[in-house]
Amino acid sequence: MKALVYKERLLLDTNYPRPAARSGWAVIHVRVAGICRTDIELTRGYMGFQGVLGHEFVGVVADSEDPSWAGCRVVGEINAACGRCEWCAGGLGRHCPHRSVLGIAGLDGCMAESCTLPVTNLQRVPDELPDDAAVFTEPVSAAAEILEQVPVRGSDRCVVLGDGKLGILCAWVLLTRSSDVTLIGHHPEKLQHAQWQGLKTCGPGEDTEAGADLVVDATGSVSGLEEALRLCRPRGTLVLKSTLAAASRVNLAPLVVDEVTLVGSRCGRFEEGLRLLQTHRLPVQRLISDRFPIDEGLSAFHRAGEPGVLKVLLDMPG
Amino acid sequence: MKALVYKERLLLDTNYPRPAARSGWAVIHVRVAGICRTDIELTRGYMGFQGVLGHEFVGVVADSEDPSWAGCRVVGEINAACGRCEWCAGGLGRHCPHRSVLGIAGLDGCMAESCTLPVTNLQRVPDELPDDAAVFTEPVSAAAEILEQVPVRGSDRCVVLGDGKLGILCAWVLLTRSSDVTLIGHHPEKLQHAQWQGLKTCGPGEDTEAGADLVVDATGSVSGLEEALRLCRPRGTLVLKSTLAAASRVNLAPLVVDEVTLVGSRCGRFEEGLRLLQTHRLPVQRLISDRFPIDEGLSAFHRAGEPGVLKVLLDMPG
Repeated sequence: MKALVYKERLLLDTNYPRPAARSGWAVIHVRVAGICRTDIELTRGYMGFQGVLGHEFVGVVADSEDPSWAGCRVVGEINAACGRCEWCAGGLGRHCPHRSVLGIAGLDGCMAESCTLPVTNLQRVPDELPDDAAVFTEPVSAAAEILEQVPVRGSDRCVVLGDGKLGILCAWVLLTRSSDVTLIGHHPEKLQHAQWQGLKTCGPGEDTEAGADLVVDATGSVSGLEEALRLCRPRGTLVLKSTLAAASRVNLAPLVVDEVTLVGSRCGRFEEGLRLLQTHRLPVQRLISDRFPIDEGLSAFHRAGEPGVLKVLLDMPG
Repeated sequence: MKALVYKERLLLDTNYPRPAARSGWAVIHVRVAGICRTDIELTRGYMGFQGVLGHEFVGVVADSEDPSWAGCRVVGEINAACGRCEWCAGGLGRHCPHRSVLGIAGLDGCMAESCTLPVTNLQRVPDELPDDAAVFTEPVSAAAEILEQVPVRGSDRCVVLGDGKLGILCAWVLLTRSSDVTLIGHHPEKLQHAQWQGLKTCGPGEDTEAGADLVVDATGSVSGLEEALRLCRPRGTLVLKSTLAAASRVNLAPLVVDEVTLVGSRCGRFEEGLRLLQTHRLPVQRLISDRFPIDEGLSAFHRAGEPGVLKVLLDMPG
């Protein structure tokens, strides 16, 4: 099958072996896959991953022991857990220490004609949700993880730093709980795309009032984290959404002096992501900047890395 | 009066002006003051503070508008708040943006014959608590702040990194809630002093099992924070107790991947500190390494900075 593979470099393999059916796992024909910033990082060596890239998709179940899944349109949680440890027993398979992660760690991803995941990872996509919305389930669920970790009240003043895809989705998800959400970014055209439900935006050079109850750092930069600390009120909460700021020089003294709570936040439950997409009709499709057939996958990656570009989709044949 | 003053250098001023009585404030005759690591940092320029040092004391009220305070033995919360802002209204004067801080910011401290604080900051010391225990109220309250910020359950596995005074007090305070507390440090003699109520200790070279529910970093070093992240379980809580790790290179990626919550923690309520000292009989007096009259204050500071030394006290005349 055709697959976008990272093996020292990014390449299109037209003869990659199809994933085999195995007990408890389903084989899925991928229809649409999304390119995420993490995918671009993976092609720069992040996580040391080699194999088929991709963890955002919508597809149709082609093979499964349980015939009730056959032909179902699905999305799938990306952490393939062991199902036997205490984390899995507690419903937190996405922290299972034995997990593999679709297209990120130890498991071929979805930028291919087919991929495979445990059946328990699958969620049926409601008929009214088109493929181009359902393909956003993974990043919407990641944004919704904030609501699972932090109690957000209607009166809370929320600020999101970073006008990339994840920052915009975090702002939209917060708008389903609070009426006071400000998105701060450097790209006027992205802030324009983000306009929804009374979202306030703030561009470069504009001053943002400090004292927010909740600040989400989705910039992936150190200056983002320090700016987030500056904007957060004493005893407020700061959510860190990106691993990319990684090993960097950061002044955490204000965190102690102001007794701020810094919450690391990663993947979320797909059930909640689908619910938000369906019930709140998040306008995710306007974030699609471009789309390519998988045969032009290399161009798609190039395009996804260009300034001003939000989501780039890959269409699979058939 | 005699006072230990930092003004470009540490000096003993034998003719420092006594603090004047003013409305809402009490003048306190200090009996015993403690030297804290923060005091040593202040003599190295931390916070840019100049004036009388000291924020740990027990004393007797000498002058107050309210005669019911006269002659009372007291300790005092170190943040002098405005009493009018929303923080003060919410009982969190220790985050009042207009606050001054005893011996740390904008307010002369307690390493002097007298000091002054708002009457609302004072707490009467129970008769059964000797001066040498009561002088620990400030650091015990700071340790107890963890319990106000983080729900600690009896079954939680807790780890404290750092066998300095604050680390030991944090471990003891956690032992009042959980039976499973491990203190990790590099100084066998300090770990020996810390033995109390089934505390587990772990010295250099000994391996500590990862997966703790709660990790407190009281090392004040960057390697401490990274080790704390290593020891904390996914979705666990890490409390950062020191501002001294400040602007440093730290890898926060594990915080995001494991969705750890990092809580900055500073001062606590003195009422709770006194309650813990009294009810749980924390053996704080064994942390006293040495004591000096204020006339020998410079020697006391020198002694407090020596390796292996825990608390050094200053006795005031009279």
